[in-house]
Amino acid sequence: MRKKKRQPLTQKVVTDNQDDILMISANIDDQTPEMLAPVMPLLLEQGAYDVFFSGIQMKKNRPGIELNVLVDPGDQEAMIYTILKHTSTMGVRLQTWQRRIMRRHFETLTTSLGPVRIKVARYQDITKKTPEYEDCQKIAVAKHLTLQQVYQAVYQNL
Amino acid sequence: MRKKKRQPLTQKVVTDNQDDILMISANIDDQTPEMLAPVMPLLLEQGAYDVFFSGIQMKKNRPGIELNVLVDPGDQEAMIYTILKHTSTMGVRLQTWQRRIMRRHFETLTTSLGPVRIKVARYQDITKKTPEYEDCQKIAVAKHLTLQQVYQAVYQNL
Amino acid sequence: MRKKKRQPLTQKVVTDNQDDILMISANIDDQTPEMLAPVMPLLLEQGAYDVFFSGIQMKKNRPGIELNVLVDPGDQEAMIYTILKHTSTMGVRLQTWQRRIMRRHFETLTTSLGPVRIKVARYQDITKKTPEYEDCQKIAVAKHLTLQQVYQAVYQNL
Amino acid sequence: MRKKKRQPLTQKVVTDNQDDILMISANIDDQTPEMLAPVMPLLLEQGAYDVFFSGIQMKKNRPGIELNVLVDPGDQEAMIYTILKHTSTMGVRLQTWQRRIMRRHFETLTTSLGPVRIKVARYQDITKKTPEYEDCQKIAVAKHLTLQQVYQAVYQNL
Amino acid sequence: MRKKKRQPLTQKVVTDNQDDILMISANIDDQTPEMLAPVMPLLLEQGAYDVFFSGIQMKKNRPGIELNVLVDPGDQEAMIYTILKHTSTMGVRLQTWQRRIMRRHFETLTTSLGPVRIKVARYQDITKKTPEYEDCQKIAVAKHLTLQQVYQAVYQNL
Amino acid sequence: MRKKKRQPLTQKVVTDNQDDILMISANIDDQTPEMLAPVMPLLLEQGAYDVFFSGIQMKKNRPGIELNVLVDPGDQEAMIYTILKHTSTMGVRLQTWQRRIMRRHFETLTTSLGPVRIKVARYQDITKKTPEYEDCQKIAVAKHLTLQQVYQAVYQNL
Ligand code: NI
Ligand code: NI
Ligand code: NI
Ligand code: NI
Ligand code: NI
Ligand code: NI
Ligand code: NI
Ligand code: NI
Ligand code: NI
Ligand code: NI
Ligand code: NI
Ligand code: NI
Repeated sequence: MRKKKRQPLTQKVVTDNQDDILMISANIDDQTPEMLAPVMPLLLEQGAYDVFFSGIQMKKNRPGIELNVLVDPGDQEAMIYTILKHTSTMGVRLQTWQRRIMRRHFETLTTSLGPVRIKVARYQDITKKTPEYEDCQKIAVAKHLTLQQVYQAVYQNL
Repeated sequence: MRKKKRQPLTQKVVTDNQDDILMISANIDDQTPEMLAPVMPLLLEQGAYDVFFSGIQMKKNRPGIELNVLVDPGDQEAMIYTILKHTSTMGVRLQTWQRRIMRRHFETLTTSLGPVRIKVARYQDITKKTPEYEDCQKIAVAKHLTLQQVYQAVYQNL
Repeated sequence: MRKKKRQPLTQKVVTDNQDDILMISANIDDQTPEMLAPVMPLLLEQGAYDVFFSGIQMKKNRPGIELNVLVDPGDQEAMIYTILKHTSTMGVRLQTWQRRIMRRHFETLTTSLGPVRIKVARYQDITKKTPEYEDCQKIAVAKHLTLQQVYQAVYQNL
Repeated sequence: MRKKKRQPLTQKVVTDNQDDILMISANIDDQTPEMLAPVMPLLLEQGAYDVFFSGIQMKKNRPGIELNVLVDPGDQEAMIYTILKHTSTMGVRLQTWQRRIMRRHFETLTTSLGPVRIKVARYQDITKKTPEYEDCQKIAVAKHLTLQQVYQAVYQNL
Repeated sequence: MRKKKRQPLTQKVVTDNQDDILMISANIDDQTPEMLAPVMPLLLEQGAYDVFFSGIQMKKNRPGIELNVLVDPGDQEAMIYTILKHTSTMGVRLQTWQRRIMRRHFETLTTSLGPVRIKVARYQDITKKTPEYEDCQKIAVAKHLTLQQVYQAVYQNL
Repeated sequence: MRKKKRQPLTQKVVTDNQDDILMISANIDDQTPEMLAPVMPLLLEQGAYDVFFSGIQMKKNRPGIELNVLVDPGDQEAMIYTILKHTSTMGVRLQTWQRRIMRRHFETLTTSLGPVRIKVARYQDITKKTPEYEDCQKIAVAKHLTLQQVYQAVYQNL
């Protein structure tokens, strides 16, 4: 199990607006939910961009799970290895998708609750400003506020 | 494992329009889909009115399954026993629902494809006539037709 | 089909914080999604508080739909009648739930985009202020903005 | 926001039986369901062939939504723009699918309830005749019948 | 936000086989998945027996989320308060379920990988022995094994 | 309807570890669950590797079903024909995925309950041994044991 810590996609500065992404998928019917669950954070730690489960109805009345992993095409071999090792599946399927992404960078906003990083994303004439989830979550815990209260305070200064 | 074969609810003549039904539910996170699946026909064979799975998102990123079983309140003890024996759950929850049901009886319709039972259901001024699924399915297989073709033929004679 | 137009729950002034609500449910496996869909707005027009579908896995590999309708207990008979008339089900199940609700009233906020109603809800020391969805949606369409832009403008004045 | 009204795919005459279709997808975890919902009719108005949501289980216990949009490859840029503008996502993924479709044209059927358009679709030796949903829905409302009653009347004349 | 740390239900010794459990539910359509997610561990920390999300299809094309919380009836007021505070809902619904549970206690098994707690559950003539998930997970991380390898080693000694 | 019986993928000996697989998909909104369900075993009998349903939320509040079929690319035409014939869809979409699979062969294990085939799968340094589901299921029925009891007995001899 290699341990390449990389920044999650949502916290990266992005300057291009096109690239490719690889989806690796498998249908799981012979692993328990509690044994499949730790595969999600494990793949994210190893650099997967996104991991998500989808409940599916398989043959013979089986309430199966589709595992989907979005990765950098360069990580293909390492990710396949981890999925085959830590899940019960005997095979995975692979599909390359093109991606179109907004250019993004970070700014720091001074709010009544302290500094919060703001992700600023642009595509043609579209601009989106999004408070960093982790910053808001930390303030919520530290100041004993709800996440909703923190976001509202941030929006009032945006 | 008792083997009380009873007619499935959908094939019973019903003359009252109210009764009670018991729902028995459990959240499953430590049994594989392929081991949970045979519980569905097993419970139906033992007289459950309906069994259904629902994909749920449980704690710690677990893609769990909610098992729901609708039974005659008189079968409560036998059904609890079977669920505790054949699933991994350590407990079940129980809830009584009232039911309102349409009175129903069966008629036989002569169609171009042969006789088909029609379930005739009534509630106040509402009448519904539904071809028996199993009869249509048998004709489809025997005559090498699609189910859709059989239903359309039946509706043309209804 | 009676046509009792009543205000949706989310737009009512509420002064008590407890009442009862009736859930009416049915598992549907013999009606098409496109024929089941219009039942949702129909029940809401007739005064249902909430209507929601949930995908379930039924016997014999059927990808069924659970229909759930939350209604005022006083509307029980009319709602059962509509469900039995407009869906394929031959029976429904009924369950009373207690409810605990926040007291709420409306205020009007003057924003840079015009007036917007704000729902103010209170429970013990909790206060929530929520812009009325329909007001924001109307402004978004009229001023050719995204909903997100409207909500952000409202939050800045809240 | 451009407003190219085009006929929905299900109401087009189709004479070829192969083409390509583009799927545009995004995983949404930072937009509310009520703010995401209007994107569905908006994309359909702009000419998307199909739009559908799928509940997915994302990282950190998030009950996210996968947005899927099927479009004409020639509409790629306009559709990407609308999705990036009206949803919270910072990127979309793109995949081309081949399609195999039944040739289809419309006929008008005279029924006891009035004229109803019938979509006639052919592929090799397969023929399917489907009553137009919108026509049936209009009759149901005008004559105060259930959709099921209208379809049954149509099938009896098909 | 009170912080009553209590043992999760799955790690308790249980000597009775019947009790009552309260389900608190709400349909969420105006909170983002990333803001709803932290409510799950928060409620579990405060003593909820189980918390689970279920994707539902709400009115106006909204892909909503049903929040379900199973709690000790004695915790009703505290749990309602937390849900109303940390989610966007303006009301919750409450339902008491009976429960039937297996009696259970813990034993320690010496395995080739070290000691593992085994939950031993009994109901009439049924006995189930389940390795403690957390113990197996810790061994997997410490010895760099997959969970599946740890469970198989434990089963070989059970 | 051709009847090419082929061994299900999960019971094949596999000696290569790469190939291509074709996914055929369709969104269904005008077929009932009970009429769609028999398509699953029908496609598997004709040689599909996997068939699965996924509940999706389609336009106009329709709780639709996504049908997904994974097939050998050489079976493309026959599978498209069967899907168009036995479902209500007027078109399907097609996508080729690469696959990476574990090499596998079968061994027979002598257990206290009799012989059980074990699937042995290998990929680089990963080895997985999985009891054949059908063998375990037959023993469970014959000896009146739960599937869990059979698997535990097998694991103790693995
Ligand atoms: Ni590893
Ligand atoms: Ni995010
Ligand atoms: Ni039994
Ligand atoms: Ni039925
Ligand atoms: Ni009506
Ligand atoms: Ni609302
Ligand atoms: Ni626009
Ligand atoms: Ni259609
Ligand atoms: Ni709190
Ligand atoms: Ni557990
Ligand atoms: Ni055929
Ligand atoms: Ni398998």
